[in-house]
Amino acid sequence: MEAKVEFTPIGEVLSADRLEGGNERFVNRRETIRIYPEYVPGLTDLAPGDRILLLFHFHLSKDYDLITFARGRQKIPGVFNSHSPRRPNGIGITEVSIVSLREGELVVDGGDLLPGTPILDIKPA
Amino acid sequence: MEAKVEFTPIGEVLSADRLEGGNERFVNRRETIRIYPEYVPGLTDLAPGDRILLLFHFHLSKDYDLITFARGRQKIPGVFNSHSPRRPNGIGITEVSIVSLREGELVVDGGDLLPGTPILDIKPA
Repeated sequence: MEAKVEFTPIGEVLSADRLEGGNERFVNRRETIRIYPEYVPGLTDLAPGDRILLLFHFHLSKDYDLITFARGRQKIPGVFNSHSPRRPNGIGITEVSIVSLREGELVVDGGDLLPGTPILDIKPA
Repeated sequence: MEAKVEFTPIGEVLSADRLEGGNERFVNRRETIRIYPEYVPGLTDLAPGDRILLLFHFHLSKDYDLITFARGRQKIPGVFNSHSPRRPNGIGITEVSIVSLREGELVVDGGDLLPGTPILDIKPA
């Protein structure tokens, strides 16, 4: 039952700009995401203002730690009690709101993704 | 940038039993999940009562529809505005609470997963 599971990204983060009012701790960004043409029909009925979950791949994280170091906390949690990118399967989730959506170009507020991040899935939040 | 991404399940659903008070529409289950031995240290500091997100693979869903049929709704949303298992990358998310946790056996309330479902990741909710 440990067969590998293979996914193909549906898009990628093109750019990420810090918004006015953001600070270092709580980064507040506007991100532009390109959804690849073959998947664009899957965005039907999504509209500005909608809140969505972006599922993405921590593509820069090449390894994992089962025990993490949580900054500023006394305890040292296991990776499954953390949001560390260094996890066995590097899937991240971030909730954002749609600013605009035109063809396959999706602009969102609220995420914290690096340009080049592969998007694996989108779900209603 | 459309390189495939490969994941290896960290565990699987062993059994799922409907709880008293569940009904057909809102299934209420108690599920037993086996986390494979090599990943058990990653559960450190998780405890009964904690709410977690289980990320899983819709392993029985072999294909996808970009436009879905949403039962009982007028509109027909794109798959990315739905929770359909028939999605390009079949990753599901369910929030559950931990009932017990002993070695790699994790018992949770609130999910709706089939026995045999591969677990890809666990995060704090």
